[in-house]
Amino acid sequence: MAYSADELNQYAAFALRLADAARGQTLQYFRKRATVFNKAGVWFDPVTDADREAERIVRRMIGKVFPDHGVLGEEFGEVEADGPWRWVLDPVDGTRAFVCGVASWATLIALEYEGDPILGIIDQPYTDECWFGVNGKTVFRHGEDEVLCETSGLTDLAKARISTTDPRANEYFRDHEAATFERLTRASRLARFSLDAYAYGLLAIGELDIVLEAGLQRHDFSALAPVIEGAGGVITNWSGEKLGADDRGETLAAATPELHKAALAILNEKTI
Amino acid sequence: MAYSADELNQYAAFALRLADAARGQTLQYFRKRATVFNKAGVWFDPVTDADREAERIVRRMIGKVFPDHGVLGEEFGEVEADGPWRWVLDPVDGTRAFVCGVASWATLIALEYEGDPILGIIDQPYTDECWFGVNGKTVFRHGEDEVLCETSGLTDLAKARISTTDPRANEYFRDHEAATFERLTRASRLARFSLDAYAYGLLAIGELDIVLEAGLQRHDFSALAPVIEGAGGVITNWSGEKLGADDRGETLAAATPELHKAALAILNEKTI
Repeated sequence: MAYSADELNQYAAFALRLADAARGQTLQYFRKRATVFNKAGVWFDPVTDADREAERIVRRMIGKVFPDHGVLGEEFGEVEADGPWRWVLDPVDGTRAFVCGVASWATLIALEYEGDPILGIIDQPYTDECWFGVNGKTVFRHGEDEVLCETSGLTDLAKARISTTDPRANEYFRDHEAATFERLTRASRLARFSLDAYAYGLLAIGELDIVLEAGLQRHDFSALAPVIEGAGGVITNWSGEKLGADDRGETLAAATPELHKAALAILNEKTI
Repeated sequence: MAYSADELNQYAAFALRLADAARGQTLQYFRKRATVFNKAGVWFDPVTDADREAERIVRRMIGKVFPDHGVLGEEFGEVEADGPWRWVLDPVDGTRAFVCGVASWATLIALEYEGDPILGIIDQPYTDECWFGVNGKTVFRHGEDEVLCETSGLTDLAKARISTTDPRANEYFRDHEAATFERLTRASRLARFSLDAYAYGLLAIGELDIVLEAGLQRHDFSALAPVIEGAGGVITNWSGEKLGADDRGETLAAATPELHKAALAILNEKTI
């Protein structure tokens, strides 16, 4: 490793401070009937003041404490750096959930070393739930309670609880991706929707078994791998490669390698 | 009115005690990887021990304090009574959410007088959120905070946030119902899924504007009208009649009479 354990611990503690700072902003707007407006783009993507203000404060903290680190955020793009470290931020992942008062939105914070995420946070401020993956372990904190995460351990696809944010074509999924999701749901037990990154947190604590998505960008997925892998799960793109290897933002997370393999087989079935 | 304000107050206080008692049971099982098994039925409907134990304890309390009241519950059917009062219970509405660790399931408690719900509770124990509609008002309690509910007041369908538990045909919706929901989403702004009765609570606090469902049974919908109407919203079946007037369990809840009318027009468009 090109960095020390001490250095990593320092970044880990700092990452949690970033999440706390973001909470101070986002919670001011959640369920306060905040103004919502439309960004230009292929699909409807509401952005709230919460999103922007949280990203501003987090960027300011990083710039002050680690000025040689790069930053990539959903709202304000990339500030490149010469060094190997880059923070990847999505202050409000799940803005649709946010504007509907549903506490499944999350603040996502990742720290990448030469492009690989080495720590990831999924934080839900309203319910006071935080998943933190680093060093091959994931901790889930809810209020005062803290547990080490373990996925369900499920290996049988027929028993799997699967999730995606929107099963319909022309939202996140293109036509053939929606069809693929439907094929996977038919092979599994039940499906839930509209959970955004919160679904990956539920997978890490054994409450969901598979999450399948498409159309994710780096700020949506960078924090996920440390959380999922630290809980014993597997996360790749739909070809079984590491996230970011393609530009379609397709993610497949599963509770176990066996379940991941079974899902991947369904994803890559040749259909007429 | 054939009952006094004192009598109603007594029932209201008792209803909240029932919700608390149910919490004691349901929370023991939520996110505890409880055993889930299949009921025989047309669709997959997991039932947890939580559901059964909560209903048992609530029925016991009603039987002891108000032995002349009828009870209708999801798990253990109906106990009829000679009098005008009947409690209608669903200890865990949203059992799929429950088994996926998603805190959008709710305990539903209604008290009916001669078949009309006069009080309704939607209670989410994990997030400590409770909606209580009675006497033309709805109170929302979250932890220590209590507010009087008001819907969003939205009248413009094009701006509406709409919700249904599952948009797919052959889950709750029959084919033509799924098509109707799709028509309504095309006329509105955005759609969220998988919220079960919790969606009606969000509508009552102005965070969703329309909820459309089908396939609900009396224990699923009896508690909803007092909560929605007490917040200034409107709830009917898809023909604009009061809930329970048909046997298809179709519900349409909207933030305002204007929005309800606009949605109803889309629902009843003749399509080829």
